[in-house]
Amino acid sequence: MSRRTVKAPADDAGTVEVAGDGDAPVRRGRGRPRRSIDREQVADVVEELFEEGGYEAVSIEETAKRLTVSRATLYRTVPSKEHLLAILFERMTTELYDAALEIVENADLTPRERVEQLVRAQIDAAFRQRNYLLVFFGGGNLPAEDYEKWKTWRRRYEGLWLKVVEEAIANGDLPDDDPRLVTRLVTGMTTWVARWARPGGPHDAGHIADVALRLVLSDPKR
Amino acid sequence: MSRRTVKAPADDAGTVEVAGDGDAPVRRGRGRPRRSIDREQVADVVEELFEEGGYEAVSIEETAKRLTVSRATLYRTVPSKEHLLAILFERMTTELYDAALEIVENADLTPRERVEQLVRAQIDAAFRQRNYLLVFFGGGNLPAEDYEKWKTWRRRYEGLWLKVVEEAIANGDLPDDDPRLVTRLVTGMTTWVARWARPGGPHDAGHIADVALRLVLSDPKR
Repeated sequence: MSRRTVKAPADDAGTVEVAGDGDAPVRRGRGRPRRSIDREQVADVVEELFEEGGYEAVSIEETAKRLTVSRATLYRTVPSKEHLLAILFERMTTELYDAALEIVENADLTPRERVEQLVRAQIDAAFRQRNYLLVFFGGGNLPAEDYEKWKTWRRRYEGLWLKVVEEAIANGDLPDDDPRLVTRLVTGMTTWVARWARPGGPHDAGHIADVALRLVLSDPKR
Repeated sequence: MSRRTVKAPADDAGTVEVAGDGDAPVRRGRGRPRRSIDREQVADVVEELFEEGGYEAVSIEETAKRLTVSRATLYRTVPSKEHLLAILFERMTTELYDAALEIVENADLTPRERVEQLVRAQIDAAFRQRNYLLVFFGGGNLPAEDYEKWKTWRRRYEGLWLKVVEEAIANGDLPDDDPRLVTRLVTGMTTWVARWARPGGPHDAGHIADVALRLVLSDPKR
């Protein structure tokens, strides 16, 4: 996890600190407006707005209101809706990458178990993040610099998958063809779960992953 | 295929006919501006604009220009960008549904062959329509009445898949679980092809479908 403290440009209202959640809250006088913007809190609020009304419901105004900071304060560190989305995007991708890295680096797992765990982690994320995962997975709706970060992230994340898929192919667990093609087909299946899975639906993330694995892994699987 | 002739509301410039491509072109005097809007031609132009510059590049102004009709003429029958998209959307869904129906109704095929052909048809469509398929598969970007049509279409299209998947499960070709869940996992894999497949890429639609089928169908498959 990269937790950073970013200094927004100073203006005549003073410097606003953007604190990562490892940082102590900025001390402020009683009754003074809040000046510290916590990125984790921002991500929580944006997630909540997506849940309530989708992409259209996300706005700086509503986020400021729920964070009980002034719109001007939020604007100084989050200058546009795209930047607001970028904060949630960063949390989502960091989480997904870290989970995948842990699986890839776990020496106790067989190649087949690694595929199983990657599929489970991605379906779990798609299920929980169904309200916004596909907004980001197109790579759109982000500021230019975050779009570049997205491309880098996707390459690194796919790199982890490729390593696991190559081993699983060598092991006979997945069909022997271009590992990148196999990876994209499998991650397409798991990513698209965000489109149709619902918390009140007939299947939870665990069961969806069971069936996905029975579909893609070689027998014995049924 | 439903080919319809829709009469736009008359205005003081006269009635504009929207001709399906089965209709004879509307006769017009030499040098008079074109008054007939052909839905197939509109769909072709919108597809071309998606290809050139994505969603942002699609506009009534540019479509009118390429159809060599005035903007006012096009506006009378296509009152918004959403309506413009709806014309391409209708062609796409009609084509996909008709292809699936033909496969389902072909009594010469085994259940396994039906799955194979459905997967091939959908990957082929995702590949060809990669510039806009996902714009529509979210169900967004359409006028309200077309969004309702989209929901109906999706239900009917999924209904065709369900029938085939149920038979294939009974036959041992797909894992035995909720046919709707199996259908959505498989169609997620095939739909997402639109996100990453490219004409200059290393694999064509046929090869992508081969590997997708080796992944999802039970052995013997490798």
